[in-house]
Amino acid sequence: MNDTTAAIDRRPWEQLVALAEAGDEPALDVYLSSLSSTDQAYAIAHLDEDEVELVLQTLAPEHAADLLGLLSETQATGILAILEPESAAAILQQLPTDEQADLLGELPETQSDAILESLPAEEANEVRALFAYDDDVAGGLMTYDLLRVAVASTIGAAIRLIGENLEELSDDDIRYGYVVDEAGRLVGVLPMQNLLFVKRATLVADSMILNPMTVRDDASLVELAEIFDSHSFLGIPVVDQQGILRGVVHRESVDQAEGQAAESDYLKSQGIVGGEELRTMPVSLRSRRRLSWLSVNVLLNFGAAGVIAVFQDTLQSVIALAVFLPIISDMSGCSGNQAVAVSMRELSLGLIRTGEVLRVWLQELSVGLINGLALGVLVGLAGYFYQGNIWLGLVVGVALFANTIVAVSIGGTVPLIVKRLGFDPAIASGPLLTTITDMCGFFLVLGIASQMLDKLVVS
Amino acid sequence: MNDTTAAIDRRPWEQLVALAEAGDEPALDVYLSSLSSTDQAYAIAHLDEDEVELVLQTLAPEHAADLLGLLSETQATGILAILEPESAAAILQQLPTDEQADLLGELPETQSDAILESLPAEEANEVRALFAYDDDVAGGLMTYDLLRVAVASTIGAAIRLIGENLEELSDDDIRYGYVVDEAGRLVGVLPMQNLLFVKRATLVADSMILNPMTVRDDASLVELAEIFDSHSFLGIPVVDQQGILRGVVHRESVDQAEGQAAESDYLKSQGIVGGEELRTMPVSLRSRRRLSWLSVNVLLNFGAAGVIAVFQDTLQSVIALAVFLPIISDMSGCSGNQAVAVSMRELSLGLIRTGEVLRVWLQELSVGLINGLALGVLVGLAGYFYQGNIWLGLVVGVALFANTIVAVSIGGTVPLIVKRLGFDPAIASGPLLTTITDMCGFFLVLGIASQMLDKLVVS
Repeated sequence: MNDTTAAIDRRPWEQLVALAEAGDEPALDVYLSSLSSTDQAYAIAHLDEDEVELVLQTLAPEHAADLLGLLSETQATGILAILEPESAAAILQQLPTDEQADLLGELPETQSDAILESLPAEEANEVRALFAYDDDVAGGLMTYDLLRVAVASTIGAAIRLIGENLEELSDDDIRYGYVVDEAGRLVGVLPMQNLLFVKRATLVADSMILNPMTVRDDASLVELAEIFDSHSFLGIPVVDQQGILRGVVHRESVDQAEGQAAESDYLKSQGIVGGEELRTMPVSLRSRRRLSWLSVNVLLNFGAAGVIAVFQDTLQSVIALAVFLPIISDMSGCSGNQAVAVSMRELSLGLIRTGEVLRVWLQELSVGLINGLALGVLVGLAGYFYQGNIWLGLVVGVALFANTIVAVSIGGTVPLIVKRLGFDPAIASGPLLTTITDMCGFFLVLGIASQMLDKLVVS
Repeated sequence: MNDTTAAIDRRPWEQLVALAEAGDEPALDVYLSSLSSTDQAYAIAHLDEDEVELVLQTLAPEHAADLLGLLSETQATGILAILEPESAAAILQQLPTDEQADLLGELPETQSDAILESLPAEEANEVRALFAYDDDVAGGLMTYDLLRVAVASTIGAAIRLIGENLEELSDDDIRYGYVVDEAGRLVGVLPMQNLLFVKRATLVADSMILNPMTVRDDASLVELAEIFDSHSFLGIPVVDQQGILRGVVHRESVDQAEGQAAESDYLKSQGIVGGEELRTMPVSLRSRRRLSWLSVNVLLNFGAAGVIAVFQDTLQSVIALAVFLPIISDMSGCSGNQAVAVSMRELSLGLIRTGEVLRVWLQELSVGLINGLALGVLVGLAGYFYQGNIWLGLVVGVALFANTIVAVSIGGTVPLIVKRLGFDPAIASGPLLTTITDMCGFFLVLGIASQMLDKLVVS
């Protein structure tokens, strides 16, 4: 009783640990269920590794699986990595095969292999089969859970089949029945509502929709998104090369995969590479991943710094220029990144293709001229007023004007070029852009200045 | 015949214009339908304003509406803005009310008002009612199209109702029947599959699910996402304060809205503010929106440049430091942006709350120490080898070490603080971060250097 009173003041994660330490699985499960999915994720994010293990071990596997199902993939994978392979397998078993494969696919191979060995052989094989697919093709997005109807049966038999499975099937799974022949080839679909309007003795073969739209298991996310955009289907059956029904891909899996791709582009463009980072991950992993990106950047930076080194004497003669170098570097970076973002977006919407470098460049040129002029005049005036030297203003103004045009030209086209070369434009575009615009900007300021030193040096 | 042969060599957008110029609506529609949704968007993106208008005017309104429905919201809105209000209204009328409201909501008020005046009064009022809702609440995400069943009717009558409307209802709309009383209040739901297992004479009241889960029309996107995460429902009925059924919000609308929020965060973080940009938009609009962001940045930049100005004499004495200023500025920006990205992601997943500044700061500190040490040593060595002066290496190495810690501390916490203050962290975090880390980095390098000038100046 005392415990319950004390619980009122406890924070959610403290309450989880307290109930787990008491070994009170029913109370732990009830408490978890009383939290919203966000609050569950929030509470788990506040536990350390030992506490997560304790809570998950205390929960019955099916309740632990419910919890994992609510968390983001990154958070759920992090938990699996902490658990002993046997415990992880016991929990995973309670999830649908496609979710098992999604989570295991995020783990290092040694860990996922250990867990797979603890799964029943049949289940492990199903998961391994899904592993064969990339995350972003139909095979990787589909679920095995679907209502399979034999073409030779009657509508009445199909209705009985649904009735028997009503408990296990989710809403998702009973939108359509998928009609297969003896070899497992898809021959038709049976929309559920149609069952309402035909006699129960009718053969399935006589009331199904023939030649249903299908996708091959290697269809890409872009193709899937196109199909769902153009049709109101909620799910599309997935077949292999032989026409054998492998699973069904649902509209929301495609929507979610597109959302994840957008999230992931954002993270990669900001230098979070090698997988999403949560702050509950080990410091060594977080630090290593971030450093892998930073170390490439610092090398690129040496290139830009080299330009300054070359013009070191010019800079020493006109030290006021040093005040404007970071402004020119930063503003060009900003202008260029805007152009990168628009190209990334147009690429993902399919409005431009990687070959259209010239078209994009021309479209950026006009914006670059206007914005370069505006920024150049502003910074040029600042240069003039800083030391009352019109020539200093001219040098920094002209350099920023010209470098803005360079920056939007590079920024607009570099994602297309990087993608065409087969690299990931979300990762590579930013650092490439910054390096080139920095080198070019420093060269413009210092190069122009070196040609008119007599006007710039205040005696 | 000649035309058809020539068409083979034409690019899709040229073909669209040719068919529109010939006024051949059936051929134009057939040609459009032969393109995938991505190819349609791609072709339209290659037309200028006059050509878009010509193509849309040539198409019958229902076919033009089909086209608009396939395009992204930004692209579709851009087209509506080009058309005369009457033509825009004729096309819009063919779309579901929620899509009408979505598109009109993106237009400037003078344009949307003009189009609304050309719509039939009743339809205009429905759209205005949806306008009252924000884009990211249940009312703004719901659709009016649903199957409404009177509580007093029988299952047989409900089945007849479905049969009569089978053509007009999409798959989406007939997952559930929504049971209402005479006042329009929601009293139950009727899952379609249940209709298969009850006698037709049964009263709807006796076979519906009572007390269905509902959401209020002002429920936020986060609340909706939580409900769909925790339940397998495909749609949730939306009710107002009086319990009157207003519409239904579908799982995919919520998924899509979440994806759009992620896209939009990415664009805003890169300086594309005030709405998404497509390169087919007028140059003046694109330039103005980009400049609005750049001009704030340039002002912030003057602040950082001011620090250099203060230490101008130190810099002139040890000009080699100028080579390292951009490296320190850029690397600190990179480290800080990584921390911003992780915080943005953890905020959107609900794993941290805006009050947890201290916790996030401690978690960043450990990564900052390691990465700061690694980068500091690397750049410090470069400093040493550049001029064979160990003190130069020490100054730049220590400054970068310290500033990396500053950068991750600011980067990790600034999104929480900005959000707590009620501003958009996606827009504000980047510029704030860069300004503070630049000022601090320049101050560290030049401040430390000014204290040990005798060791740094090579005589």
